[in-house]
Amino acid sequence: MQLQPPVPAQPPVPALEWCDDHLRILDQRSLPGALVWVECHDADDAAAAIADGVVQGAVSAGLVAAYGIALAARRIGRSADWAVDLQTDFERLAQACPASSHLLWVLGVLDDRLQRLRYQGQGVPDQLAQVAVNLHASDEESRRALGRLGVQVIRRHDRQPQKFLTLVSPHSDSHAGALDLVRAAQGAGLVEQLYLCADEASDACRLALWELDRDEVATALRGAAAAGQLMRSDNISWVVAGAHRIAANGDLISDIGTYSLAILAMHHGLRFMVVAPSAAFDLALESADELDPADGLLSPEGRLVMDVTPADLIDVIVTERGVVERPDESRIAELLSPRHLH
Amino acid sequence: MQLQPPVPAQPPVPALEWCDDHLRILDQRSLPGALVWVECHDADDAAAAIADGVVQGAVSAGLVAAYGIALAARRIGRSADWAVDLQTDFERLAQACPASSHLLWVLGVLDDRLQRLRYQGQGVPDQLAQVAVNLHASDEESRRALGRLGVQVIRRHDRQPQKFLTLVSPHSDSHAGALDLVRAAQGAGLVEQLYLCADEASDACRLALWELDRDEVATALRGAAAAGQLMRSDNISWVVAGAHRIAANGDLISDIGTYSLAILAMHHGLRFMVVAPSAAFDLALESADELDPADGLLSPEGRLVMDVTPADLIDVIVTERGVVERPDESRIAELLSPRHLH
Repeated sequence: MQLQPPVPAQPPVPALEWCDDHLRILDQRSLPGALVWVECHDADDAAAAIADGVVQGAVSAGLVAAYGIALAARRIGRSADWAVDLQTDFERLAQACPASSHLLWVLGVLDDRLQRLRYQGQGVPDQLAQVAVNLHASDEESRRALGRLGVQVIRRHDRQPQKFLTLVSPHSDSHAGALDLVRAAQGAGLVEQLYLCADEASDACRLALWELDRDEVATALRGAAAAGQLMRSDNISWVVAGAHRIAANGDLISDIGTYSLAILAMHHGLRFMVVAPSAAFDLALESADELDPADGLLSPEGRLVMDVTPADLIDVIVTERGVVERPDESRIAELLSPRHLH
Repeated sequence: MQLQPPVPAQPPVPALEWCDDHLRILDQRSLPGALVWVECHDADDAAAAIADGVVQGAVSAGLVAAYGIALAARRIGRSADWAVDLQTDFERLAQACPASSHLLWVLGVLDDRLQRLRYQGQGVPDQLAQVAVNLHASDEESRRALGRLGVQVIRRHDRQPQKFLTLVSPHSDSHAGALDLVRAAQGAGLVEQLYLCADEASDACRLALWELDRDEVATALRGAAAAGQLMRSDNISWVVAGAHRIAANGDLISDIGTYSLAILAMHHGLRFMVVAPSAAFDLALESADELDPADGLLSPEGRLVMDVTPADLIDVIVTERGVVERPDESRIAELLSPRHLH
């Protein structure tokens, strides 16, 4: 009997590619029908890519903004005062998505560096580009670490392929970590089936399906209303959720519908896992009880787009820095302490 | 001080009006933008109204079919063998919605009568029209009885206005009874707020909002994903569900998402009420465990559109024949026994 050669996996398609004098972005609006790349040559191009949805997700938008500043500096070449010459570019990029605190944080990182370099005359474009490249590499390393840690948790539960259920919201990208985790688990041979609870008409759902399909994750799309029946009849092991924000005591603020999934998971004896970057912890928020629902859970248009899942419904939180089982205030503080090594 | 005259309530808009030589139907497709009436003068018109969605809901479609047979007989006037002369009309009406067992049941009732009248020559059109009028009156009386009984249950719980939550499915009309109940409760001054969990883009949702608005029910539309957060934070008293079918032991087969609502209701200590015509009981089905999910819960296109709520999650079932609290086999048998008087 001849062994079949393994089917080569599809090479990953980088959503962002830095080409030193320009940035290539895989146009998310063209997916899944076509692979279209958009090139950015200056900060205006980058701001337009963010504002027009060529990039989606706060993390990617932040990276595009960082590269946008690098491109703006490169276009200027030399300057007597970089901070003055780049001011308009910073403003334009911040305006591309004013509601994104992550975008503002990234621009802040670049501005900090710039304040130290502002009178250097030359060499600054390369240094700003290096900041963007480092942010990019650090983001990718975080995603890998998060996947690795999540896979350990799943494997500890069961070494066999398992069934997962997750929610994809059209209103946010907090499900991105959950999808990364499932794809990492797929790579480790731990995924039998993923139920994706989503509105099939949404862009976020189409993108998620495209990414999962590339990694050959066996994915079934279901309405969120089917979650209870699936948990009752389909031997699911894990409900995986993303996070918008996590309070110091572990209370989770996430896409609307997450709280219901957590209750359903508890009722059916399934494990409920939260996957999020450690930056999602907001230690200034003691618990979700402090949250003003009127501004904490609504979209800018006043729609209820998030809900609160109390910490006691959560089995485990996976971040790039480590894992917290049965989260509470002291375990979370321990994870986030500077001494913590995973 | 002058007393303001009471604001006159909007008169009810009859969806079906029998005008003796024709039937007037309020075109459901025109709502809520406009009130358009469609006239049916024969069985073909009636079949088209059913097939084209001028009427919606199995009960209304059944009544239109009954009137359609009466109109066909009136057009014929005299006949040596009514059963032969009306055969094509019966077939055409049955074909207008072949999946509806209620439609076939109604046509069966008319056919039974016809078999006894088939050689009578004349007078038959009036007798068939009377069958249709009686079915119509009996349906309206059932709805009133159901509303009355439901209001008693709600008032027993609390004499003050209360908050309700219900689900409107785009795939079925089993929510009709739940909406009738809320409107009856509104008439009794018992509704503070109704949360309607529905997809706002669906026809069923638009129709429900229009009907509730006419009865001045304070209605807030929410996605089904918001149900958990609403129950947690909004002091809801009742979750009201419709039924597609109820097993002999009280297991409920209803629109997908109902099971999740029942679990969420239990978790939050809210009361879960099922509102359905007594015809929804299927005593041949001992429990939902006997149901083959492959054909019991799927749409004709193979989508999961229904789920199963075990009887022990149900606080009360309200029918036009009476009320069953904490349903089980013996209480349901008692309700459906011919000796039962409500």
